Order: sequence, then structure tokens, then C-alpha cells
Amino acid sequence: MMKDVQNLADPRNIDIDQVGIRDIVYPIVVRDRDKGSQHTVATISMSVNLPHNFKGTHMSRFVEILHKHQADIGTDTIKDLLEDMRTSLTAQESHIELAFKYFIEKRAPVSGQSSLMDYDCEFSSTLSDSRHDLVMTVSVPVLSLCPCSKEISEYGAHNQRSTVRISIRCKKIVWIEEIVAYAESSASSPIYALLKREDEKFITERSYENPVFVEDIVRNVTQLLDKDSRITWFEVSSSNMESIHNHNAWARVVHKKV
Amino acid sequence: MMKDVQNLADPRNIDIDQVGIRDIVYPIVVRDRDKGSQHTVATISMSVNLPHNFKGTHMSRFVEILHKHQADIGTDTIKDLLEDMRTSLTAQESHIELAFKYFIEKRAPVSGQSSLMDYDCEFSSTLSDSRHDLVMTVSVPVLSLCPCSKEISEYGAHNQRSTVRISIRCKKIVWIEEIVAYAESSASSPIYALLKREDEKFITERSYENPVFVEDIVRNVTQLLDKDSRITWFEVSSSNMESIHNHNAWARVVHKKV
Amino acid sequence: MMKDVQNLADPRNIDIDQVGIRDIVYPIVVRDRDKGSQHTVATISMSVNLPHNFKGTHMSRFVEILHKHQADIGTDTIKDLLEDMRTSLTAQESHIELAFKYFIEKRAPVSGQSSLMDYDCEFSSTLSDSRHDLVMTVSVPVLSLCPCSKEISEYGAHNQRSTVRISIRCKKIVWIEEIVAYAESSASSPIYALLKREDEKFITERSYENPVFVEDIVRNVTQLLDKDSRITWFEVSSSNMESIHNHNAWARVVHKKV
Amino acid sequence: MMKDVQNLADPRNIDIDQVGIRDIVYPIVVRDRDKGSQHTVATISMSVNLPHNFKGTHMSRFVEILHKHQADIGTDTIKDLLEDMRTSLTAQESHIELAFKYFIEKRAPVSGQSSLMDYDCEFSSTLSDSRHDLVMTVSVPVLSLCPCSKEISEYGAHNQRSTVRISIRCKKIVWIEEIVAYAESSASSPIYALLKREDEKFITERSYENPVFVEDIVRNVTQLLDKDSRITWFEVSSSNMESIHNHNAWARVVHKKV
Repeated sequence: MMKDVQNLADPRNIDIDQVGIRDIVYPIVVRDRDKGSQHTVATISMSVNLPHNFKGTHMSRFVEILHKHQADIGTDTIKDLLEDMRTSLTAQESHIELAFKYFIEKRAPVSGQSSLMDYDCEFSSTLSDSRHDLVMTVSVPVLSLCPCSKEISEYGAHNQRSTVRISIRCKKIVWIEEIVAYAESSASSPIYALLKREDEKFITERSYENPVFVEDIVRNVTQLLDKDSRITWFEVSSSNMESIHNHNAWARVVHKKV
Repeated sequence: MMKDVQNLADPRNIDIDQVGIRDIVYPIVVRDRDKGSQHTVATISMSVNLPHNFKGTHMSRFVEILHKHQADIGTDTIKDLLEDMRTSLTAQESHIELAFKYFIEKRAPVSGQSSLMDYDCEFSSTLSDSRHDLVMTVSVPVLSLCPCSKEISEYGAHNQRSTVRISIRCKKIVWIEEIVAYAESSASSPIYALLKREDEKFITERSYENPVFVEDIVRNVTQLLDKDSRITWFEVSSSNMESIHNHNAWARVVHKKV
Repeated sequence: MMKDVQNLADPRNIDIDQVGIRDIVYPIVVRDRDKGSQHTVATISMSVNLPHNFKGTHMSRFVEILHKHQADIGTDTIKDLLEDMRTSLTAQESHIELAFKYFIEKRAPVSGQSSLMDYDCEFSSTLSDSRHDLVMTVSVPVLSLCPCSKEISEYGAHNQRSTVRISIRCKKIVWIEEIVAYAESSASSPIYALLKREDEKFITERSYENPVFVEDIVRNVTQLLDKDSRITWFEVSSSNMESIHNHNAWARVVHKKV
Repeated sequence: MMKDVQNLADPRNIDIDQVGIRDIVYPIVVRDRDKGSQHTVATISMSVNLPHNFKGTHMSRFVEILHKHQADIGTDTIKDLLEDMRTSLTAQESHIELAFKYFIEKRAPVSGQSSLMDYDCEFSSTLSDSRHDLVMTVSVPVLSLCPCSKEISEYGAHNQRSTVRISIRCKKIVWIEEIVAYAESSASSPIYALLKREDEKFITERSYENPVFVEDIVRNVTQLLDKDSRITWFEVSSSNMESIHNHNAWARVVHKKV
């Protein structure tokens, strides 16, 4: 019989906070507010703690558990996956991070034409005896138009694609679609994959009427998230790909509610 | 009525080889040899030629066509998509590039345990009056063990993950799964997402018995593709993430058959 | 004495087009038009051909040659480096690709304040008995403002950062700084790392007065490069990070002069 | 005179934790233990806090300060840069993050041949009235050979390139070169850009004699950093690019010393 090297004792007396696998790419099915479920592809990291007296963990079990759960990933089902990790690897604490593209069907504002917009989403979750923690992050591309540029110029105003990144902890379910709406209403305009000329006119004018600094975007989102009583903690940042520079403007607010 | 700026005449007398959209991310459904179809996510570029007398193309039509075709992408259906582009944009030539993850269920060599391996795939295709061209590219991660290191050392041999990248043109259908098999049989060993200890022993010993230089990998693949009469042109390269260096060893062969 | 496995004969009768090292990162010193030289960091690939009768190349010699030449990299000195590769590896043909950041000091248009802008540059060069080929590529970030959006809207116009990528072959030396100037004069406005308010006003208004489609940018560059008799071949593309979409508009022209 | 929109009052009563610029690329000169200084290229983010009563910060000042300090970046000079940010932007707290390649000349273990190895480094630093905090991070590529694979196999053992990432806070200066040495001595073997055959034999045998799990690497580093009394806090992780999988094995330990 083969020796189980991982199960040997380790003399160094050092607990390992996290050990596992990183950057495995797997197809997953995630919960979708409107369609029930949606197929996508995730980059995933999974880990557990390892007490000082064990030499190694059993890496293959992470993949077995992922393979079993990949067809139903949601903020509500992730706890079962983490519980399986704790049991299978006899660990006190288990962690998972999933990063994936999520698609939402959107209608252009005037023509009503349909297309899909892609959003970068992440679930980061930890389970221990005493608690289950889940942070959901959604990155939302929007349009920002500079108030200073508008104010000081005879005509025009520089504008650009920005990415509003929102992470939340919550006590009741909050959908990805709701986070997207918070971000879009805080910028100069939402953006779309498909726009006809009447839509382009609408968005150009709308954004000129709604200039926002990167500071305004994060403050507008903060006001909305502060008011949402389901959310207990959040971090919001915005990165504006300044059209007049080769670098980005950026701002960030973190709020923990009491 | 709004002016159609794109349709204005252009005085510079310069034909544009390609104009369109790049790096749009969309969910697609691709043909799968074993399961019929498979859901994945693609990064896509689409373009057409633009004669010198037109000022601009109509960018929104690319997205309309993509939205219509995304549910059935295969080496056989891509021609319809390209034909739609030519018609909708009144162009002589249309191009599309799709890059996506493709998953294949594999069984570990001894334990037989199942898991999914991810492969980077690309379709690059052009349609004009006179021809339809399609290049399919598959990148296959494998294990390579160095023959020199084995030969000169008392014990052991450095080995590493390598990526074998194969592009083909063909006159009859060749499946992604067949390209993967060609690459895997040309290296020291295939690799897997899930391996139990008996599998790890098997692969360690197998790779030690089959040392290959990066040059051997591309020559082994070349021999196989030369013999496959469905394939009319190919390019094969291998990039070995040398475990003794912080850079890669790399080799490349291109063959055009008469 | 250790066996030289690489020098063994190979029975497969397959020439290898290119074999070498990829993605080694090294500090280099490049020629600078204004300051004489400039320190930067490059990602480098080097390769040679390998005749069918040799089993393998000698990878360490690439690094020896790079280490020897890294302190003087220019379009004129690269030929010596390639000649060293041919000699040291007894090859007919040698290739090198270097990708690096290049910095140019720029003054803001009104305030005159100085800062450095970064440009992605690449040298790709091949030497054989019969020819020396060198392609220089420079990617230039600029501002583009949409003519259609300006035309159809009551006020404002969507604009964004764009990257103009120009590759050239030439018979007399052309400086990176000249390629940057060609790209910047073909867009709605150059961009800068450091702008005070008076500069921001200037650029906002200037870009509104000079709207360009992605098609216009590549045509404008094409006109300039067509006229420059030092340049014998070029490829120009522009990628506009559309502020109203989450994807890019893109166009490309290739000209080979007779 | 132009209106200073940024200086307007803001009614939303929301403090902004950080606002500034991100991902600006600039040439810098960093302190080098052996040569005094070294030229490299950095990707940099800079930010300050913004009290609730101000509408916006003045982005151009970040670039002015960076331009002034870029020629002398070290763990000791970074405090002056942060102080300049606090003063120029009238902020309580200033932050900077710099990520750059750092090169160390290394001699091959047997042949003694010289070459440069590249290491990813980061400085992340914060200054407020009450404290100055600096975290230095160094990522060190090494070779790891699997103890389990060696134990259960008749011959050979899978091995791979791994990246050991070490972040430290310290009360006395610790050089990048010392962190690299800690990481290299904790793995199966250091790795090099340039190795002759006698070196390859040495490293192959040495790594076979020193098998380490990813857990062993982080524990070995932990033992060394625990003993170094200059270091007050550290985080160490290792990511092994498993040659038998297409994903990585990973482990992490964080220690705060009392």
C-alpha cells in the first residue's frame, strides 16, 4: 500500500491559515434573478486551514467537491459546498473564491433593442464553526463625464468608460441585477452592448446633463447602499479610464453599518 | 431625421482592410463532439472591409448579428454568420475571431475518476466572394520532462507544465477532442484536473519513461498532423514553463501541404 | 564527461522553423533620440531555426547573448545581436522580439508643465544569409471624439482613450518620437500624464473641434505614412475604448509600398 | 478666471477614504543593496483621503509629486513622497503603491556564470499624523519537487516552478535580496536565468534530495521570518504551478509578532 505522506506528523509547530488550489477554471451554473439559472465559466480558488500537526492537505478532494457542486452555484448554495470542504478535509475553516462573467439582457433606452452586457462578478465565502461569511462583488462599466471639463470649456466635456466595483455583505438576498442598477444610476449614464443612433443621441445628451467626478460616483453609490437595510457592509470604488490621460482616476469608500 | 455621418463620402481615397468591434464578451453555445453542445463564454472580434468611398461602417450591426447567432457556434455554422455580416454591412469580406474555454470530461488513468479539463480554443474565419477560410486553434496543457536533465543526473529530472498550441486548416471536420489527443500523445504525459495517488504514481513514472525536449513535442505533433489527410495546413508550437528557469522554452513548426 | 543529448541525431526528418526562449524579462538600455539612451525593462523572445538532423538547440546560449547585449539595444545594433545568435548556435536564421515601455517627456499644451508619457514599443527582427528584416511597433494612446455623436446630439459628444498601433519597416532610421507624432496628429487630441485646468480646457475644446471615427484615425495615419519615403511597409490600427459600450471599435490598414 | 469645481462644497456628508490616480506607469530609480541604485519601470497608484465637505481632489498634483520623486525610490525615501502628498493636497492621510521588476545578478551554482533574475516587488505605504506604515512584498520564483510523488513512484518526481510571495513590515531595514534568500532556501532549489549542463545536473539532483510540499515552503519561510527580529509582521504564500495539473497548489501563513 502507498504511504500517505500528507498524513505524516509535522514537527515545525506552525498552523497554516489557508492551503488549497488556485486558478482552476471550471464551467458553472449560477442563479439568475430573471431566468432561474445561467451558464458561465469561473476561475476558482478553494482552501482550508491546516493544523500544525499535519504535514499536508489532500488537494484532489477540492476538485472532487467542485465537480459535484458546479451545476448549482448561488449565494444560498455556497454554504453546502463549504460544509462539504470542512467535512471532507476535516478542517475547522473552509474558503472559496469564484470569479465569473455574468450576463444581463438590456434594452437600449430609445430603440428598445436587446443585447447582453457582461459584468465581472466574484463570490468570496468562508465557513467556520462560528460563522458563515459571504462577500459578493460586482464590477459595473458605466459612462462618466467630467464636471470640471464641462464647466471650464466653451463646448464639449471629456468623458470615458468607468468601472464601478461594489462589494457587499448582506443579511437578506441582494441580486447582482440590483447592484448593477445602483452603479448605473450613480454615473453619468449606463452603457450598452447595442445602441442605434437614437440611443447614442440620448446617452450623449444624458451624460452631458449628468456630469460626475469619480468622487461623485462613489458618494452616489454610498448614499444608495447606506439606505438599503439588507446590506450590512460595503466597499465601493470607481476607476475612470480618463480619456485625456493614460492613467485612471480612482476613489473608494468603505462603510460598516452598526 | 438624423444625419447618417457614416454614409458620407470620404475624399482620402483609402480602403480600410478591416473595421469593426473588438473584445466584446458574449456567452456562446459551441458544438461538442460527445454532448452535442456546450455553454461557454467568448471574447470576440468582428470586422469587414470598407471601400475608400465610405466614411464609416455601422458598428451596431455587428452586435445585432452576434446576438442572433450566439446560440449555435460551430466550425460549420460560422459561415452563415459571416454571410450575414457581408450582407448587413454590404461588404466584400467579413472576419470573425472567437476565443473561448472549452471543457472536456477526462478520466484519471488508474482510478478512473472524472473531472473537467479546460482548453483555450480559437476560431478565426474569413469569408469573401471567392473563398471561406477557417483556422481552428487549440491550446493543450501537458507535462514535459527534460531528456538532458534525466540523462546527466544521478536521479530525478526537471519537468513542468507545457502548453502545446495547434492551429489547423482542414477540408473535413476535425474535432477539438482530436487535436487534444494529438498534443497529449506527443508529450511526456497528459495532465488532469483530478488525480488520486495511484494516478500521480502512474503519471510520474510514465513521464520519466517518456522524456521530451520542446523540439520533440513539436516534431511528434508534426508527424501526426502530416499523416492526417483531412488537415491541409497547420502550425504547432510548444511553450515549456521550465521549472529550473523563470522563462519558457519554445519551438514552432508550420507545414503547408501541397 | 556528460553526454550532449541535444547534439544527437534526430531520425524524424523534420526541420524546426523556430526554437528558443520566450518571455524572459531583462533590463535593457535603448537608444533615445533626445537623451542618447534610456533605461527600461523588456520582455524578450529569441529563437533560431534547427535543421532536421539535430535533436535540440542549446538554450543557455540565448541568455548569454542577451546578457552581453542588453546595455545597447537599438534598431541599428540589433543586427549584431542576431549575428551573434547565428554564430553561437550555428543557425541559418535568427529572430528576436523585444517588448518594452518607452518614455517621452512632454509639455502640457498651455501650462507647459513637464511629465513623462509611456508608450508600448516592440522590435521584431530576423537575420538570415540573404536579408535583415526589422519591424518596429509603437502603440500611442490618444483621445478620439465621435463625429456621429457630435452631429446628432444637441450638446456634448462621447469621447474616449484610443490606442493607435503603428508597425513600420523602413530603409532609413525613423525614431519612436516621430511615430508618436504621426499618431497624435491623426486623432482628436494627444493625451498627457500631467494637465492643469487651462490644459484640460484646451484639450476638451480641441477634441470637440476635431471629431474622428476610428476609420478616420487609421486613414489620417495612412496618409502621413504613405508620404514618408523612409517607410517601405506599414500596418496601422486603432482601438477606441468606446465610452458608451463595454467593447472597443477597431480599424486596420496595411500598405506595402512598391 | 476659471471656476475651481473641485473646491466646491459637497452636501452629501460622505468622507472618501481614498481618492487619487491608479495604474500610471513611470520609470523609477530604486535603491539596490549591491549597486547603490537600479533603473526600472513601475506601475503606481497614489491616493489621499477627502473630507466630506470637499467636492473633489486635485488629480494633477499626484503626477507632479511623482515626477519630482521618481529618481529616488526606496523604503527610506518613500516617507518624504507621502509627506509631500499630504501637504500638497491638504490631506490627513496619503497612500502609495508601487509595483516593479527588480533584478539581481546571480551566479550559476557550478559554472559560476552570471545572469540577471527578475523579481516582482511592491511597496505599499501609508502616512498619517500618527503613523507611517510600509509593507514590502517580494515574489520569488523557485523550484518545488513533490514529496508524495517521489515517495510513491519507482523513479522520478513531478516538479515545477513555484512563486513564493513574501510581504513584510519591519522596524529595521530588510533588503529585497534578503527576502529572496529566505524564499530560495525554503524551496527544493533556487532557479536561474542562465544554467550550463553542470548546473542543470546540480539543480536536478539537489531538488530531488529536497522535496517540499507547498505547505513545507510556507512553513520553512515562516520559521526564518519568525526568527528575524527586524520583522514585526509578515504574510507568506506559495503558488506551485503543478506540472501534473492545469491549476496551482497554494498555501498561506500570516504572523503578527507581539
